[in-house]
Amino acid sequence: MAGKWPIALDAMGGDRAPSEIVSGGKKAVSDFGLSVILVGDPNEINNSGGPGSLPVIPASEVIAMDEDPAKGVRTKKDSSLVRCAEAVRDGKAKAMVSAGNTGAAMASALFRMGRLSGVSRPAIASPLPIPGHTPTVLLDSGANAECQAEWLVQFAQMGAVFSRVRYEIERPRVALLSIGEEPTKGSPLIKETHKMLAALGPSSGFDFIGNVEGRDLLDSVADVIVTDGFTGNVALKTLEGGLKFVMKTVLGAMSATDEAKAAAEVLLPYLLPVATELDPETTGGAMLLGVDGVCIISHGSSSATAVVNALKVADELVERDIVAQVAAAIKS
Amino acid sequence: MAGKWPIALDAMGGDRAPSEIVSGGKKAVSDFGLSVILVGDPNEINNSGGPGSLPVIPASEVIAMDEDPAKGVRTKKDSSLVRCAEAVRDGKAKAMVSAGNTGAAMASALFRMGRLSGVSRPAIASPLPIPGHTPTVLLDSGANAECQAEWLVQFAQMGAVFSRVRYEIERPRVALLSIGEEPTKGSPLIKETHKMLAALGPSSGFDFIGNVEGRDLLDSVADVIVTDGFTGNVALKTLEGGLKFVMKTVLGAMSATDEAKAAAEVLLPYLLPVATELDPETTGGAMLLGVDGVCIISHGSSSATAVVNALKVADELVERDIVAQVAAAIKS
Repeated sequence: MAGKWPIALDAMGGDRAPSEIVSGGKKAVSDFGLSVILVGDPNEINNSGGPGSLPVIPASEVIAMDEDPAKGVRTKKDSSLVRCAEAVRDGKAKAMVSAGNTGAAMASALFRMGRLSGVSRPAIASPLPIPGHTPTVLLDSGANAECQAEWLVQFAQMGAVFSRVRYEIERPRVALLSIGEEPTKGSPLIKETHKMLAALGPSSGFDFIGNVEGRDLLDSVADVIVTDGFTGNVALKTLEGGLKFVMKTVLGAMSATDEAKAAAEVLLPYLLPVATELDPETTGGAMLLGVDGVCIISHGSSSATAVVNALKVADELVERDIVAQVAAAIKS
Repeated sequence: MAGKWPIALDAMGGDRAPSEIVSGGKKAVSDFGLSVILVGDPNEINNSGGPGSLPVIPASEVIAMDEDPAKGVRTKKDSSLVRCAEAVRDGKAKAMVSAGNTGAAMASALFRMGRLSGVSRPAIASPLPIPGHTPTVLLDSGANAECQAEWLVQFAQMGAVFSRVRYEIERPRVALLSIGEEPTKGSPLIKETHKMLAALGPSSGFDFIGNVEGRDLLDSVADVIVTDGFTGNVALKTLEGGLKFVMKTVLGAMSATDEAKAAAEVLLPYLLPVATELDPETTGGAMLLGVDGVCIISHGSSSATAVVNALKVADELVERDIVAQVAAAIKS
């Protein structure tokens, strides 16, 4: 029956909404048999190709990409994001997916679905794509700009569950992002968290492997990397910006002359699989961990393909009952 | 006369010391007419090709790359790093260059040369290479794991001087690294710093352009990017790791088959200039700003070429009197 229970898709969220979002939703239904309910302005959806066979939960407002999240959620009660979260809360949807304003998606989920019992702060878990390996999960990648050591310990617990449920890593290696490998390196927050994580023992369900540095993010040395939301967001965006920059530069060099273009054509089949694996569109979005429901936050620039991937991830995580597992890990 | 006044080069610091370091020192003298004095163990220097025509300040100890910086500087008074800083303090050298333990280089410079009057905390300024543009200066990239808003404001002032003196940017654009462009985004530290920087006015000698994000680091939107040493170090290493990873991946794809190898050979002349510009070896190292002397910290993996570039930068910054200009900016 879970297959018939739909995923609420925020049709209005993202730089390419509603057309690419709606198109992704339809594709997920037609090509992968998922159940999807669109949430947004029916007129806008009609003007962007229409909902097809998909049902629509009408929502007259939109929280813009650059709008203040807390204020947006407070004042726009009929926004697509708030209605998505309410659909999950009320049992009309089994999960929500949005490529919209990240902070507002988080606030909607937090205020409407509520926090899981015992969770101090929800955190955003972002998979870092590592070609040839399972992704490394970075959290918090932006929910909490300032953190306490106890919260970071919970991020480790929740991130380990995510790595286990999503990537089937039986006993995830959990690391702490710092500025040196030694336990004495880092800010007071990191040193305190290091001590607490090191004291957890084997019953935690994961192995704390100590500190890692920024250069280790794509090195597959850890399955989960824990950090505060400020540092995590800077690191994630630095990585995205850096990869994009190099891709652009390499592509530029490859089209400098006819000779270069011809050579590039030969190389493209070798480079494309890697580029695809590194593309944030492929990873299926980040998950807000610690709220009472599945909330997937997709990249703001999401195309229909990214939306399909995010919907598939949402479906899978509901099937695997991730929320109950996060709740159990925090309680234990 | 300044040309005859030597730069103290830490012969023992770096993953490839002493041979690559000494070789770089000799090259800087023979090819570029710089004046260099080696600091380190005379036996080790002799065993690595000898000092050539370069004078040597003997130092019997070495602070290892992974040694605790403060303890190293406190207990190893005859270490090459401490002797380098003393040579600058005592007027025997006009600047110091080391590819050794960053924290220990910083501590040596701080304790032996002393802080400039009015400087709360020295900061490490790292140039981020941007092909086709002058580098963006990121500071603090690792000296202070925890910061106060007043210190960040001084980092902005010192970074602007560095950008002006080193890259001849008349009125540098200074930005604050955060997790959103709006002044309301970020940690309490960043929001407070934003207010203070915005209140500075035109007499500061730079233009505060507000917040930037991790993805803007290589975008040349700012000449100086200010952050605390924890975030800065994570961002810098994330960038380094990401670029290295992509380079490795692209090179791997390029040598997958004979067909790919042949195509790669055609493309290499187009890609090499960019790879060279992005290479940390090219940038000439980071500078510790706020101490009473020029201290250049080169990458731990520095080759002879990186050492030559770092020595050239040190020479230039002394010629341009950067220390006096930093002192003046902080006093005003």
